[in-house]
Amino acid sequence: MKKEYIKDILKNKTKKVVLYGWVKSKRNVGGFIFLDIVDSSGEVQVILSKKNKEYSKLIKKILPESSVKVEGILKSNKHKNFEIEATKIELIGEAKLNLSPRPRQDFNVLDSRYADYVLKNKHFFLRNKKIQAILRFKHLFLFNLHKWFTNNGFVFIDAPVLTELLLYDDKTAFKLDYSDRVKGKQEVFLSQCNTFQLEAAVHAFEKVYNITPSFRAEHSKSNRHLREYWHLKVEIAWANLDDLIKLAGKMLYEVTKETIKECKDELKILEINIDLKKLKPPYKQITYDEALEILHAKGNKMKWGKSLGIDEERILTKEFGEIFLFIKGIPCSAEGFPFSKDPSNIKITRTCDLIAPEGFGELLGTAEKITDKKELIERMAEKGKDTPKQMKRYQWYVDLRDYGMIPHGGIGMGVERVIRYLLKLPHVRDAISFPRLYGRYPNP
Amino acid sequence: MKKEYIKDILKNKTKKVVLYGWVKSKRNVGGFIFLDIVDSSGEVQVILSKKNKEYSKLIKKILPESSVKVEGILKSNKHKNFEIEATKIELIGEAKLNLSPRPRQDFNVLDSRYADYVLKNKHFFLRNKKIQAILRFKHLFLFNLHKWFTNNGFVFIDAPVLTELLLYDDKTAFKLDYSDRVKGKQEVFLSQCNTFQLEAAVHAFEKVYNITPSFRAEHSKSNRHLREYWHLKVEIAWANLDDLIKLAGKMLYEVTKETIKECKDELKILEINIDLKKLKPPYKQITYDEALEILHAKGNKMKWGKSLGIDEERILTKEFGEIFLFIKGIPCSAEGFPFSKDPSNIKITRTCDLIAPEGFGELLGTAEKITDKKELIERMAEKGKDTPKQMKRYQWYVDLRDYGMIPHGGIGMGVERVIRYLLKLPHVRDAISFPRLYGRYPNP
Repeated sequence: MKKEYIKDILKNKTKKVVLYGWVKSKRNVGGFIFLDIVDSSGEVQVILSKKNKEYSKLIKKILPESSVKVEGILKSNKHKNFEIEATKIELIGEAKLNLSPRPRQDFNVLDSRYADYVLKNKHFFLRNKKIQAILRFKHLFLFNLHKWFTNNGFVFIDAPVLTELLLYDDKTAFKLDYSDRVKGKQEVFLSQCNTFQLEAAVHAFEKVYNITPSFRAEHSKSNRHLREYWHLKVEIAWANLDDLIKLAGKMLYEVTKETIKECKDELKILEINIDLKKLKPPYKQITYDEALEILHAKGNKMKWGKSLGIDEERILTKEFGEIFLFIKGIPCSAEGFPFSKDPSNIKITRTCDLIAPEGFGELLGTAEKITDKKELIERMAEKGKDTPKQMKRYQWYVDLRDYGMIPHGGIGMGVERVIRYLLKLPHVRDAISFPRLYGRYPNP
Repeated sequence: MKKEYIKDILKNKTKKVVLYGWVKSKRNVGGFIFLDIVDSSGEVQVILSKKNKEYSKLIKKILPESSVKVEGILKSNKHKNFEIEATKIELIGEAKLNLSPRPRQDFNVLDSRYADYVLKNKHFFLRNKKIQAILRFKHLFLFNLHKWFTNNGFVFIDAPVLTELLLYDDKTAFKLDYSDRVKGKQEVFLSQCNTFQLEAAVHAFEKVYNITPSFRAEHSKSNRHLREYWHLKVEIAWANLDDLIKLAGKMLYEVTKETIKECKDELKILEINIDLKKLKPPYKQITYDEALEILHAKGNKMKWGKSLGIDEERILTKEFGEIFLFIKGIPCSAEGFPFSKDPSNIKITRTCDLIAPEGFGELLGTAEKITDKKELIERMAEKGKDTPKQMKRYQWYVDLRDYGMIPHGGIGMGVERVIRYLLKLPHVRDAISFPRLYGRYPNP
């Protein structure tokens, strides 16, 4: 097992160095070969004298990205930087492919002109410094989400991916070839949202959450859609819409704050300065009707009842000076069936969506859920989910309303969208290691 | 939003109580009705005077499991227990279904005689005290896994569920109805193991892990198989089999120790005393060949080259006094193709599986991965993965061997199996909220 990483060697000023890493680049200068060696923790310069014929012959023939074991002595050079004088170099794994640009080379890997190339070689481009920084940031963001919910009394519910219950139409979901010698063919889909299972769990634990892969068979090539993404779902007993709005803001702010603190190096690599003030709740709230008025005044022709698109979201956040904006009371036609109708206006739901500024669009949604069985069946009928076949599928979810139901509501958040906003990434595909995109090969 | 939970009320000795919860049971005694009210945090007795006609009439007509809002005064009774004298009771959600036994009733919910009933009503039985305790324990076990890996310098890799790369045969995987108007029909499966993506990531981050749902289309009705389960995967650069064995034991021990400390209440509910001494590494190691010798001496007729079954595992751990046992050097025929062959005996792999005592069977496996391209293609051929179609699928994974490959190895662990062992559950289905089982309805 590797004992010392480059960061440790430089920090501990280890005298006799044994270093395992990859050759980032090499240069000939006078009687020496200069090698930049990288590992997961950093980079260091290695100097090899050409007098050392065996090793300089080896180094001359290998391509960058070859992995090596270097033995040597750590010394401070005239620029007061530490470098390693190599006494022995061993080739571990030769790089035989000549990628250009190389994953560890300095270039803007997020530039859309490289997209096809980088996606095709994503298994190599995880080695890129910026891509590493994004994934490390995402790791800590996810970990801090788990920590925040755990510390705030929420229970993680291991809700399933395989399900019969969908938030939207069957045709927007991936269907499985699921059979069983005992029970025959079953209708099984990949989960779009596990509100169903969390709503059951809320009657046990009162505060629950879940972070899992979630799936959409949508035919969208936009820069904010993935067919597989990480979905945070939260469900809380005895909570109304205002509680959910408050909690969502607090969670997003505190988790981001903690992650920024732990990711100084990553943000430096990405040249990103996250403006925490912008993320500080409470966020401005406007109603869907107010949003529509603003849009119409600006010449946008969106019709009442439709979902806000990226253009509409852009206009709205700009209108208020590029701030976070909650849009309250989305029409029933644009929302999933489990969301409560507003008793004071049954054409709209008790929901509120959070839009990020600068065209990044919707990050999360909050919603009170239907507690009344009759209302739920009506809403299912509106969405065509009242056929006998569909009713059978959702039966247990309907039955929850007959067994000590309580007021409750939830939050749903697309993790990659938040990461994209925070790190100002051009595309949501940049926020996941192996993106599954519509209309694009290759796939993982 | 609910402000005070039962635990808070009893701890803070709140005088004027407003309590939201569920009626667990009710009894008539003299001029009073005694109600046991529960929420996610605990249980408290509520006393209602029958003189209070309006509320006692309400309480008489409702079934247990109805949800209520109780206002009242907290008092200490003659047994020095706190109870609430109700001044007002409001019905929130009526229980109209008459389940028997009820989820919150005291009975052994894990008894196999109740299995059909409990599985059919799992959406209600999450409310059961024991099931809650198991899922809370699992939550903290998962959280402590994330914490352990994060604190030990591992990066969480968001490896995909949708993949073309399978560890085993296509027929043991779930295939997706995956199409794309641009690219047409694609061959997509649900991941059995994300070693492929983690092996790519290890060249960037050196130490990576992942905890996601994993899928097996196996036709097994055993008490340790789920079709969807939570899979921990770890991959480490520059690690050999001994490093992996050491790390796996340390991880399992430390994460369990931490979880036990935080789950005293849950273990009390489950009447479980986890013997940490048994979990303390290093665990005994024997070779596969030695295991076979022991088995044959005991009259077991397992043939060389086969996987150990539950009977064999039972005999072996018993032989050594019911201890944790590592079985080293599993034959190639019984292991996945990415695992290295042992250079000193090419019929066996550089792998080591951990078996839990008392018939709980395999919990985790460790393996060195193949670094040589030729060896990998040979192993693929042995498993029928060398057809042009299959080669195309695995091409990028093979290519990793041509781009600065390094020695590396991994750990794979079934989370529900570990939870089952620690909590001595009869079936692995008891360790997950909505189990997806072979040959069994209903499903979530």
